[in-house]
Amino acid sequence: MNAITLTTDFGLSDWFVGTLRGVILRLAPGLPVIDLSHGVPAGDIVAGAFTLASSIPFFPPGCVHVAVIDPGVGSARPAIAVESDGSWFVGPDNGLLSWALRDRPIGRIRRLENQQLFLPVVSQTFHGRDIFAPVAARLATGLDPAELGPEASDFIRLPWPGLQRHDDRLEGGIVHVDHFGNALTNLPNDLTQGPRPVAALLSGSLRIPIATCYADVPAGTPVAVPGSTGYLEIAINRGHAARTLQLVRGQSLQAEFSRPSP
Amino acid sequence: MNAITLTTDFGLSDWFVGTLRGVILRLAPGLPVIDLSHGVPAGDIVAGAFTLASSIPFFPPGCVHVAVIDPGVGSARPAIAVESDGSWFVGPDNGLLSWALRDRPIGRIRRLENQQLFLPVVSQTFHGRDIFAPVAARLATGLDPAELGPEASDFIRLPWPGLQRHDDRLEGGIVHVDHFGNALTNLPNDLTQGPRPVAALLSGSLRIPIATCYADVPAGTPVAVPGSTGYLEIAINRGHAARTLQLVRGQSLQAEFSRPSP
Amino acid sequence: MNAITLTTDFGLSDWFVGTLRGVILRLAPGLPVIDLSHGVPAGDIVAGAFTLASSIPFFPPGCVHVAVIDPGVGSARPAIAVESDGSWFVGPDNGLLSWALRDRPIGRIRRLENQQLFLPVVSQTFHGRDIFAPVAARLATGLDPAELGPEASDFIRLPWPGLQRHDDRLEGGIVHVDHFGNALTNLPNDLTQGPRPVAALLSGSLRIPIATCYADVPAGTPVAVPGSTGYLEIAINRGHAARTLQLVRGQSLQAEFSRPSP
Repeated sequence: MNAITLTTDFGLSDWFVGTLRGVILRLAPGLPVIDLSHGVPAGDIVAGAFTLASSIPFFPPGCVHVAVIDPGVGSARPAIAVESDGSWFVGPDNGLLSWALRDRPIGRIRRLENQQLFLPVVSQTFHGRDIFAPVAARLATGLDPAELGPEASDFIRLPWPGLQRHDDRLEGGIVHVDHFGNALTNLPNDLTQGPRPVAALLSGSLRIPIATCYADVPAGTPVAVPGSTGYLEIAINRGHAARTLQLVRGQSLQAEFSRPSP
Repeated sequence: MNAITLTTDFGLSDWFVGTLRGVILRLAPGLPVIDLSHGVPAGDIVAGAFTLASSIPFFPPGCVHVAVIDPGVGSARPAIAVESDGSWFVGPDNGLLSWALRDRPIGRIRRLENQQLFLPVVSQTFHGRDIFAPVAARLATGLDPAELGPEASDFIRLPWPGLQRHDDRLEGGIVHVDHFGNALTNLPNDLTQGPRPVAALLSGSLRIPIATCYADVPAGTPVAVPGSTGYLEIAINRGHAARTLQLVRGQSLQAEFSRPSP
Repeated sequence: MNAITLTTDFGLSDWFVGTLRGVILRLAPGLPVIDLSHGVPAGDIVAGAFTLASSIPFFPPGCVHVAVIDPGVGSARPAIAVESDGSWFVGPDNGLLSWALRDRPIGRIRRLENQQLFLPVVSQTFHGRDIFAPVAARLATGLDPAELGPEASDFIRLPWPGLQRHDDRLEGGIVHVDHFGNALTNLPNDLTQGPRPVAALLSGSLRIPIATCYADVPAGTPVAVPGSTGYLEIAINRGHAARTLQLVRGQSLQAEFSRPSP
């Protein structure tokens, strides 16, 4: 395998991520380990799923993607490994992996039940260290996946937040607010390219024009632009849209279509 | 050697950690460098010692563990390298390394006084870059430890916060509050497994039941569980115990034993 | 090449940095990638330039240094690669790269215009992922720099904040406040070593004595010390100078010279 990636809600203030790397170093010396993010809000499975879905498409095949946002750690919730296109996704079976796997071919699915692959002592609070890291390191260095545990037929899938049509409008919502204060929506970029492209996003009484890039509007001005994950995002040029416009995840938005030329 | 690990209070907002990596890249190209944590509170030697003690046991032998929490940087405080079980621990001799070395065999101890191993210009504010990183890189790539400097007979050891018995109770304290708001104590997990196991932790007037994992109690409920470092921790299922219960490091706690069955 | 370094304002809470690493892993598997900092304040080109200038001198030749602080992303601002002493600097041409290159020999300069080197789909909001990462990975693995795009004769250079003489004083300013609350100035350390060395820094009505290291003064006391980047810095021993003394970037300071011995 090429690399192991790590996505967690562990933060970077404690030794948690470093300890995962120690476990991996012991079992898979020399293998690159890449942090996707450890800043997922604590226990926020939806944010973790979105993080994976937004970054995994840019990785080559041959990776083991480990994700641990796991408020049920130590309880009976299963842990799984899912194969897709030459890579493996490893984590708790709580929906976390499902958005990254939404549009991908699904290969083998195994539950992680072979305790011989875990650390000798398994805590009830840190399965990232005791189960997921050693399993990932072994998978990345040639373990036969059949040894992981019993086959499973599927995994838990989070519903993707859908769109609703209202006459001349399309209703979606904000699915993520990023570090820059930009609000990422579930309204596809290609709405702006159709025969009746989207002209503006409506957030409450605010009408936000669609442009090509942040700098298309004066500094301090709200704007919606085609975002880098394939969906429209709301920004303020050289500003922090979420703070200024009080945008939060889950908030609904409407896309207004331009009138067809006569 | 297999890797160099880094533990500091440098934070990640400046170029400090990246610069250490530049120094190491120059002297030990190709060697993996692993961040244990750079989020130790500024100048907090105790927190740094706990960070090391909690993570080092999960690393393989053959590492150089560099730790720099060094409020006395530039003053006369010595710097040391301590060998243990095929690894080296490198840092200021201020107690920082001592908890990680508590239960380990101690090999050679050397003071870092050979200036030929440092960067050509040594600042008085950034020994991580000018002394510890180059020394670690050289140690990791075959330097004879005798060249580090004179032998030392010991290093500064922080006292480990002990327990006190009061009749039917055992008094300990909170030694760390983590990113999730969980409060790690110095009360060993195995107290919950004896012939008269611990039944609850008492924090002031609050009685916190012991369970196996966070999810054993309803969301929002305080619980104490056997923690991943070998000591009981106080949590709130799907919550932030430190904020809700106002828990801070140094706060004392009592463990209450269950009555023996008649 | 030896490594790629990354300096951005992306923060670590989202998947942005991890995604750059995915792109690089695909195109340059096995190449070390080093984070210089992702904590540059959003859109703050000056802080990014200072970050690079402070760390790059400690890296060996043979690196590709990628920097992305890019409020004009998606607009017509050019992107460039600048060669210096066996390394390449890659980023938007907005001044970001200029301080790191101030005292270095400048080799070839190319504009990044060859779209065949970019990702197949280029967004208007994330050129770090779509342009800079793939170009850096290709440069680091043997791409002929002539293929990057047309030659350029120069790049945008930020003015370095200069000093002014007033009779017996030298006026400079604060150029960075670091994680520890230390305020880095543009007053060179070697002012303290001349025939009439600097005796104190004056910040408003405050007179801050010059010492050798933080621990030269009692805990809680303001002090100026020769800093690790070659310039005087203001600190409080075991304290947070910026918070206590209300120091911010851009604030002016005066250096007072000691009287020559009679």
